[in-house]
Amino acid sequence: MSSEQRQNLEAILRQGALPVDSDVSEQRRILRDLAAARPLPADVTVTAAELGGVPTAEITIDGVEPEHVVLYFHGGVYVVGDAFQSADLASQVGRRARAKAISVDYRLAPEHPYPAAVDDALAAYEALLRSGTAPSDIVFAGESAGGGLAIAALVRARDHGLPLPAAVFAMSPYADLTLAGTTMETKRAADPLLNRELLQPRVADYAAGHDPALGLISPVFADLSGLPPLIIQGGSHEVLLDDAIRLARQAATADVQVTLDITPLVPHVFQGFYPILDEAAAALDRAGLFLSTQLGAGKLVTG
Amino acid sequence: MSSEQRQNLEAILRQGALPVDSDVSEQRRILRDLAAARPLPADVTVTAAELGGVPTAEITIDGVEPEHVVLYFHGGVYVVGDAFQSADLASQVGRRARAKAISVDYRLAPEHPYPAAVDDALAAYEALLRSGTAPSDIVFAGESAGGGLAIAALVRARDHGLPLPAAVFAMSPYADLTLAGTTMETKRAADPLLNRELLQPRVADYAAGHDPALGLISPVFADLSGLPPLIIQGGSHEVLLDDAIRLARQAATADVQVTLDITPLVPHVFQGFYPILDEAAAALDRAGLFLSTQLGAGKLVTG
Repeated sequence: MSSEQRQNLEAILRQGALPVDSDVSEQRRILRDLAAARPLPADVTVTAAELGGVPTAEITIDGVEPEHVVLYFHGGVYVVGDAFQSADLASQVGRRARAKAISVDYRLAPEHPYPAAVDDALAAYEALLRSGTAPSDIVFAGESAGGGLAIAALVRARDHGLPLPAAVFAMSPYADLTLAGTTMETKRAADPLLNRELLQPRVADYAAGHDPALGLISPVFADLSGLPPLIIQGGSHEVLLDDAIRLARQAATADVQVTLDITPLVPHVFQGFYPILDEAAAALDRAGLFLSTQLGAGKLVTG
Repeated sequence: MSSEQRQNLEAILRQGALPVDSDVSEQRRILRDLAAARPLPADVTVTAAELGGVPTAEITIDGVEPEHVVLYFHGGVYVVGDAFQSADLASQVGRRARAKAISVDYRLAPEHPYPAAVDDALAAYEALLRSGTAPSDIVFAGESAGGGLAIAALVRARDHGLPLPAAVFAMSPYADLTLAGTTMETKRAADPLLNRELLQPRVADYAAGHDPALGLISPVFADLSGLPPLIIQGGSHEVLLDDAIRLARQAATADVQVTLDITPLVPHVFQGFYPILDEAAAALDRAGLFLSTQLGAGKLVTG
């Protein structure tokens, strides 16, 4: 079954992939249309709000009494996407962590290059702490650029002496904007969505004259010591696989608790396809258990 | 609490570490005495047996009706240790997988260099299959050299066209006998047990003229495609941390399902210290859930 699911998904993605020669406004339009075509689960409510002056999408689930908060960062190579387009995936994380998800609508390049996204992420987190939410009741989560941004925001929060959240969940993190991962080439044919040609102009949009190897732009190069437990998921059919692996390596060598969880033969941010891909729901369940355990609510049953 | 546990453990280990200038017979004696000083849990029974002409230790637990088999490979850099010395740790894996553990007493170097250990591992697995145990009811597990050996045996089994087991669990795998991992130096001061000087003469004992970079000696360099789901655990206080990371990388890029699970500030094969270290029992629980899920019996409860 799952092999058929994977082939169907790949065919859909290859048909819908962003054209390499499209400009930012065209890419934004395509992604908005894709997101709009996919309704949210009936029990999910999304409300526009703000946190520390940064617009957010607050995501709640009927029947799930929120005990925690998932501070969520959407993907889109720092140039496309928005907090609402990722509400479905954010709600899946929140559902499993018994949490309200707050998806942060951080500013995008090229209009607002680095460090605007990191500034907004940190401002949202600081405001969440000021609102009285205990850091031990918060987890960060993000997909693609949002995974990298979650890590960068934690590095910044640590350097500012802020208390850190209980855990962080990065899906297919875009964590090396120098594009130096070896899978950028070795997984090129296997990846139906991303490639160097599509990413390169967007790196320039975001870095905007800064060195892309800066730790806050490319957390695979950051000092990650002191960060909370981290779960990183990725698929083996993505050019960013090496970003996930090197981020895990960077965390492990810095004495951070880390789980790297790789699903074979699935694409970038495969978790978003949970309605049509068994591996996606299974991966979200594993991440949910990790987050719940760190939030002090996890139960593990074997046998 | 756990910080105190870790410091106690490190002090014990630094005191009991093998002297670098000791010879093989002295090292074997020290390890036998250490194992003998630590009684097995009262509900664990170990029986000498054999599988395909290879001696084994069969490990059962009172009250656990075995539904599965853990084929277990002990550590000891292919030169020291034996199937019985690892019975305690093997029983902890078996307990969590609702399985009988069969610990393989493969031949050791320098008396029996490569490929004797791989031959024995494969012979034991083939005999287990011939005995009528379904491959889907078997998992491989191993610690240190036994983790590397479990992977090497799987590569060999795949190449021989054998059906493969449901999963494999490698604890602190010794998987690069070229000793090229960068943590061989960067974690040198942090590792209370192993270092290059201790390992180097034992590499020569085992490789015995073969290239240590051979995939069946150093599976970080092997083609791992087609292998079953793999969970790799390691500690951040070990020179072999990079073996764990690179083995995960090699599996992920070869489209193998892999979980790399790193616990900070703990030493090589920390799982063996489960009676005095909370992180050890927690790591074994996570591995048990992974194995049970692959054996078709895992239940995952979040929230």
